[in-house]
Amino acid sequence: MQIGFVGLGHMGSGIAAHLLRNGHSLKVWNRSAAAARTLADQGAEAVDRPAGAFDADVVFCMLASDEVIDAVVLNSGALDQARAGLIFVNLATVSVAFARRAAATMGERGIGYVAAPVLGRPDVAAAGALNVLCAGAPEAVARVRPLLESFAKAIWPLGDEPYRANVVKLACNFALASMIETLGEAAALAKAYGVAPADLFAVMTGTLFAAPAYKTYSALIAGAEFSPAAFKLPLGLKDVRLSLAAGEAENVPLPLASLLRDHFIEAIAHGDQDKDWSALAEGAFRRSGQRI
Amino acid sequence: MQIGFVGLGHMGSGIAAHLLRNGHSLKVWNRSAAAARTLADQGAEAVDRPAGAFDADVVFCMLASDEVIDAVVLNSGALDQARAGLIFVNLATVSVAFARRAAATMGERGIGYVAAPVLGRPDVAAAGALNVLCAGAPEAVARVRPLLESFAKAIWPLGDEPYRANVVKLACNFALASMIETLGEAAALAKAYGVAPADLFAVMTGTLFAAPAYKTYSALIAGAEFSPAAFKLPLGLKDVRLSLAAGEAENVPLPLASLLRDHFIEAIAHGDQDKDWSALAEGAFRRSGQRI
Amino acid sequence: MQIGFVGLGHMGSGIAAHLLRNGHSLKVWNRSAAAARTLADQGAEAVDRPAGAFDADVVFCMLASDEVIDAVVLNSGALDQARAGLIFVNLATVSVAFARRAAATMGERGIGYVAAPVLGRPDVAAAGALNVLCAGAPEAVARVRPLLESFAKAIWPLGDEPYRANVVKLACNFALASMIETLGEAAALAKAYGVAPADLFAVMTGTLFAAPAYKTYSALIAGAEFSPAAFKLPLGLKDVRLSLAAGEAENVPLPLASLLRDHFIEAIAHGDQDKDWSALAEGAFRRSGQRI
Amino acid sequence: MQIGFVGLGHMGSGIAAHLLRNGHSLKVWNRSAAAARTLADQGAEAVDRPAGAFDADVVFCMLASDEVIDAVVLNSGALDQARAGLIFVNLATVSVAFARRAAATMGERGIGYVAAPVLGRPDVAAAGALNVLCAGAPEAVARVRPLLESFAKAIWPLGDEPYRANVVKLACNFALASMIETLGEAAALAKAYGVAPADLFAVMTGTLFAAPAYKTYSALIAGAEFSPAAFKLPLGLKDVRLSLAAGEAENVPLPLASLLRDHFIEAIAHGDQDKDWSALAEGAFRRSGQRI
Repeated sequence: MQIGFVGLGHMGSGIAAHLLRNGHSLKVWNRSAAAARTLADQGAEAVDRPAGAFDADVVFCMLASDEVIDAVVLNSGALDQARAGLIFVNLATVSVAFARRAAATMGERGIGYVAAPVLGRPDVAAAGALNVLCAGAPEAVARVRPLLESFAKAIWPLGDEPYRANVVKLACNFALASMIETLGEAAALAKAYGVAPADLFAVMTGTLFAAPAYKTYSALIAGAEFSPAAFKLPLGLKDVRLSLAAGEAENVPLPLASLLRDHFIEAIAHGDQDKDWSALAEGAFRRSGQRI
Repeated sequence: MQIGFVGLGHMGSGIAAHLLRNGHSLKVWNRSAAAARTLADQGAEAVDRPAGAFDADVVFCMLASDEVIDAVVLNSGALDQARAGLIFVNLATVSVAFARRAAATMGERGIGYVAAPVLGRPDVAAAGALNVLCAGAPEAVARVRPLLESFAKAIWPLGDEPYRANVVKLACNFALASMIETLGEAAALAKAYGVAPADLFAVMTGTLFAAPAYKTYSALIAGAEFSPAAFKLPLGLKDVRLSLAAGEAENVPLPLASLLRDHFIEAIAHGDQDKDWSALAEGAFRRSGQRI
Repeated sequence: MQIGFVGLGHMGSGIAAHLLRNGHSLKVWNRSAAAARTLADQGAEAVDRPAGAFDADVVFCMLASDEVIDAVVLNSGALDQARAGLIFVNLATVSVAFARRAAATMGERGIGYVAAPVLGRPDVAAAGALNVLCAGAPEAVARVRPLLESFAKAIWPLGDEPYRANVVKLACNFALASMIETLGEAAALAKAYGVAPADLFAVMTGTLFAAPAYKTYSALIAGAEFSPAAFKLPLGLKDVRLSLAAGEAENVPLPLASLLRDHFIEAIAHGDQDKDWSALAEGAFRRSGQRI
Repeated sequence: MQIGFVGLGHMGSGIAAHLLRNGHSLKVWNRSAAAARTLADQGAEAVDRPAGAFDADVVFCMLASDEVIDAVVLNSGALDQARAGLIFVNLATVSVAFARRAAATMGERGIGYVAAPVLGRPDVAAAGALNVLCAGAPEAVARVRPLLESFAKAIWPLGDEPYRANVVKLACNFALASMIETLGEAAALAKAYGVAPADLFAVMTGTLFAAPAYKTYSALIAGAEFSPAAFKLPLGLKDVRLSLAAGEAENVPLPLASLLRDHFIEAIAHGDQDKDWSALAEGAFRRSGQRI
């Protein structure tokens, strides 16, 4: 099967490498050519324009935002090059409104649309152990599922409407940001009474909160290890903003998400735009006149 | 060793039973006599007044609030009956200010004070599998540790100052309430787009949030199983209020805790005072005009 | 001078009538023709397409949103019909980003752009007593100022950059929404203790808060007179959303605006979309299980 | 008539001076004797102990907090010295719960209790132009009303239950704090776009918000004139805390008050405890990386 791949950032490169290793033929495109060359060294064909990747049976997309996908895919003429029966698999975290619009646009051209946003940071992508949230027309999902398995630890089916996978992805990232804020406020409180953040987190992750996310993030926070960033603060802000927009569109107030949004903006106003989004937790210390 | 025990609610009864089963001699007191009789049937000696329980080497306390402990222990004359060398082990979730004050008051009388608030709901207490947060003077902690082990899954030492265990306990309960709110908002968002709360929670607890607390509470929320309550809503409000008070005393703003406080009050205003505190999650549905 | 006018809702009709009465020649366009006919009866020329109104020296615009102005003005071909030296006066409450973009687009075509958002509800527009916030190139402002005076109580100059008038307009509407929320929470608190909202408001507007906005809105709230709406709830939500977006673009967190946004959404989720935005105050009563 | 007066801070001294000037005989007590001596120079009799002031027909109280009034009045033995028929007029801003408790305690001893919290800063007290919120038994209110008139611009009757005047006072101070926060956020937004706070405030106070409170506070904020403080930040925090407590006691969530509380604490954590409470507005600038 011929596969196309657009968007070779930290996440996309790791995923594409797994597709290659599984023996698939890959046409890859990336805005800056360096990442495409790296994959070409592993056997992929680097193409000059996004349209080149659409001469394929399945196209994967891991671009940064709604706006970038609009520019690179929907408004670039690339769809005119699509093979008959093409399935577009959108791995990116996009807005719910975008997912609806993109699926409709492609549907009018006979292109299948599968939403497959992933849970996991770049190291997990490199290890081929991502959790893939997947929704779309059953026959389209069935066709791409073996491809998803090449880089997934598990695949979570979420029904026929692609946008539902996006809602779940946004909800998960909201929950992560909420956890980071919680860890920050809890640790700022504890520290004011002489309890080291690491001691508090040891109790939490050793008991009620013995979950991967808590362990990973509490270690980053306790050590104030916010650089290099695996997922930068402005990306966290973006995802919370997408949750708020999705909520507003259906009249669902999300006061906790509003609070997170304000704190992300405050962190960026303090110069943290290149830090990992776990630096959101620093805000609770700053607001109380403390340091982690 | 002679042990006293005051406060035989759901938690206290379970803990006292384990002390009994481990062969200790127990003098028990409870405001309503029925719970004391149940333990008497298991071999404890029921005493008429709190002071009766203080003719002991170690007294455990699992009373409901600062105010109750003031009335039953500090202002009842009970301390006048304390044996020389008595150690008072406070299992209750009290304010940080109270812990400081109580430890000081007892210290003036030569009574040791160990803070040992516990993590776990009544079924965990009954199973003798509580996590015990423990702080106090090392020699006092060393003496009571074997007793704590009779009902603990693990003991978490948190230093010499008793109040530090209370801060950590409050931080844990704040984190639980924050998790409940997060689950509620995330599920209200998902449901507005046709994703059942249980489907969202399956993804969360199967991946990033595979923690005991998330599993227990997400099941309660998805099933809207808020009665009978293992921990009632007003108790959740109390603990968040204590976190806020502890924060204010050291100039630590806790905006997420403020949000939780408002939502607890709103839930009580809607008649949820007898529901489990996981019903906090219903608020997100109510505010969006939905039902779980 | 030939004047064009697009957008004849409650506000626009009142303003256009004053321009007419001052002897100006008006070409008017509105989506639904009825409002245009009413003005034609007063002497205006109703045109079929927006472009018809641009055969003029000055065009006033009072359309509902960024999106509508994009459709009716920027992307409709209307600008191709602009007379040389045309000045476009935007009375509408638009986003700061839109004001920047529109001014730039028009500047490229030699069209002057004056931002002149107004403070006042439809009855004030009808009375010709609006406060006009005004910013733009000095010569353009100087030319349109006599026109603004025909419907203004006062004109507030805010500098050469049009978007600054929009920021100030958004800030004023944010302050109004904040006042409504404040009145709601204060009255819900008072009522829970047996003090009627009107009694509280009498003290407030008789002392510290003896301002037009407090008097107008407290009367609406105390009487629960939310219909007919002079300014509907979703428009209030829109303006708060624009404040938040303007804040985010320059890294200014606005936590109070976030709270207002959540409460507007909650009100709409409870079916209040056709009520006046003063109905925001009902939320505080609803959340406390009370009625105004 | 013999009058007693306890509590001679900035507010109390100004009020007591007006009572003296109206020809009343005054026994005054203050913790630090200097303020009492100043009034003695004007003709008052300085007494050594609070009880000395209770040998009177009416006692005015302007002490700092519930705790201080407990210590100085309720638990000092002073009430034992009360003349038959004494009326206690509490000018202080106290909690609703305290007002209820104090009125009940005094009622048991045959002492009348009138709540008369005032609106106005020290300069207004010195000018004898305070707004007095007044509630209590009609006959008691009637007797003290001539005394109140000696320092009041207006007296606002609020019914027979003293605590209602306290609720209204708290609601007014909540509304002031809310206004300060609003001015801060609005100005931080405007400044990020190049609009000076003073220019924004000129529009606001010249139009919708032409009220004394807006004029006074916007001038302080625009000029960053936070010292010397007429009303210190921690006092503002205290009053918001009392509003929240009153709300919680009757199940009224006050999310805007919660937000204010967090911001007051944050300001204190940044060292602003000696600034005027209008410095709350600085927080919006600080959070956005700006300065006023």
